Amino acid sequence: MQYSIGIDIGGTNSVMGIVDKTGHILFESKLSTTHFPNIEGFVEACYDLLLPQILKLGITECKGIGIGAPNGNYYHGTIEFAPNLNWGEIIPLAKLFKEKFNLETTVTNDANAAAIGEMMYGAAKGMHDFIMVTLGTGVGSGFVANGKMIYGHDGFAGELGHVIAVRDGRLCGCGRKGCLETYTSATGIVRTANELLNINSTESSLRNIEKITSKDIYDAAVNGDKVALDIFDFTGKILGQSLADAIAITSPEAIILFGGLAQAGKFIFEPTRKYMEENLLKIYQGKVKLLPSELNESHAAILGAASIAWS
Amino acid sequence: MQYSIGIDIGGTNSVMGIVDKTGHILFESKLSTTHFPNIEGFVEACYDLLLPQILKLGITECKGIGIGAPNGNYYHGTIEFAPNLNWGEIIPLAKLFKEKFNLETTVTNDANAAAIGEMMYGAAKGMHDFIMVTLGTGVGSGFVANGKMIYGHDGFAGELGHVIAVRDGRLCGCGRKGCLETYTSATGIVRTANELLNINSTESSLRNIEKITSKDIYDAAVNGDKVALDIFDFTGKILGQSLADAIAITSPEAIILFGGLAQAGKFIFEPTRKYMEENLLKIYQGKVKLLPSELNESHAAILGAASIAWS
Repeated sequence: MQYSIGIDIGGTNSVMGIVDKTGHILFESKLSTTHFPNIEGFVEACYDLLLPQILKLGITECKGIGIGAPNGNYYHGTIEFAPNLNWGEIIPLAKLFKEKFNLETTVTNDANAAAIGEMMYGAAKGMHDFIMVTLGTGVGSGFVANGKMIYGHDGFAGELGHVIAVRDGRLCGCGRKGCLETYTSATGIVRTANELLNINSTESSLRNIEKITSKDIYDAAVNGDKVALDIFDFTGKILGQSLADAIAITSPEAIILFGGLAQAGKFIFEPTRKYMEENLLKIYQGKVKLLPSELNESHAAILGAASIAWS
Repeated sequence: MQYSIGIDIGGTNSVMGIVDKTGHILFESKLSTTHFPNIEGFVEACYDLLLPQILKLGITECKGIGIGAPNGNYYHGTIEFAPNLNWGEIIPLAKLFKEKFNLETTVTNDANAAAIGEMMYGAAKGMHDFIMVTLGTGVGSGFVANGKMIYGHDGFAGELGHVIAVRDGRLCGCGRKGCLETYTSATGIVRTANELLNINSTESSLRNIEKITSKDIYDAAVNGDKVALDIFDFTGKILGQSLADAIAITSPEAIILFGGLAQAGKFIFEPTRKYMEENLLKIYQGKVKLLPSELNESHAAILGAASIAWS
């Protein structure tokens, strides 16, 4: 059996694991990303965690290391200008890991890693054309066409979170206005909640909460709160409209939603599907599946990262 | 030397030619599409035109037939629901040509054919990631990623003309509102002219024309007409904004503009480039070339169609 190592680097925590080709995680562990003032220390710590396990498991065939990271660049093997990491502007991740582990190392951004993970182990198994959308703190995406990840000429393709969903809309962290991410991320839906609560006076349990979170909105929706349902409807509308435009470009078999907001289930899927269909050009209507990720949330990051070592 | 046959089917006229692999057209001809009440008659006429030439040129190795057609479907080899052709809802084009000519026949839509033509013979030679945008009566597009045309799971990918450029904007022939095509096609720019002339009273030579055409707008712009320049600026703004969103998806090396409106040169390229850059996410800024097609307009349709026989 062949194995690969998956490492997912997050702004706060990083997770890693040793995975076999069927998607079985033999070992997993975690590190605090912020604990390491420089990348060299982080690589060292990964080595100290993983090497004993590789030896203990008696692994002789390790295909390589796959790393998912914010602003990870597939072509350069780097992290470039990631706003939430303090390891320098351009971090030569693949080079450092390859030197330390003597294993081929592939880097991509977390959403691309999730897409490949989904294609190997999840809802996109066997698909050649699909879009993965991660609805987390931000919004990421990975586009697969002809069975291959679209990296673009520079490795930075797939920023669906930064297509303009609403022209001159909400200010985004990227400095532009109206990005999809400002509406359909965990923080985006909270902005919608605060806006909706401000512009009308409909009774809502959310009015009793000082600092609303996306979890509060979900809980309120479960209890039938009218404003919470409106918040999801609006979020699904913006997402559905943007997905309809993306479909006109790559015409995928399916769109897979992943991440915190996707876990709201029918509350986000139903309005998204409705508005997506309403906004589709006729030739695409009724053909594109909108699916939840089939990767276990806690393992998805490791599986996604590990899977890029195979691709 | 190997050869292929390229046929471009248009709503009014169809052109065809015999092309060698270097892009040299050895023979070309034309048929009135509307002259043929059924597809069988059209295939027959193509055969009668082309076969004598194939024999005369002494061609023994013909790679196949490539056909570019509105709503052409690569996977099915069909034309499906083309609004401007009266040969039935689903036309089994590849099957009919293959039976008649005994040559492999590949079908795709005209914009995809143009993209492959550009990749083989034009401005996209050697590129693996680019977007072809055709600005004609309508707006079409072909997306190439990883060196391959993106057909999507159903063969209908690449409808950039039908992404929503302006939410709830102009009514489109597709029944939806605000499609890019309603702004940046030859008919779209005329709509803009009529709108701009209505909402202000700026002096303009266009006011003396009863039924303005896109050519009139170009001529006025060449003469420095302020309203004509504003029309191009607005058109470039809408196009640039939509291209910026498309770049966030496939991150191409270049975008190639083709068709009547692209021939307006700097009048359309300058504002489009300006607004595209202004609307790009920082990681893409200054990196994406905006280029005119390098295919001779009168030969592009034949070359584009012929090139898909090779791919």
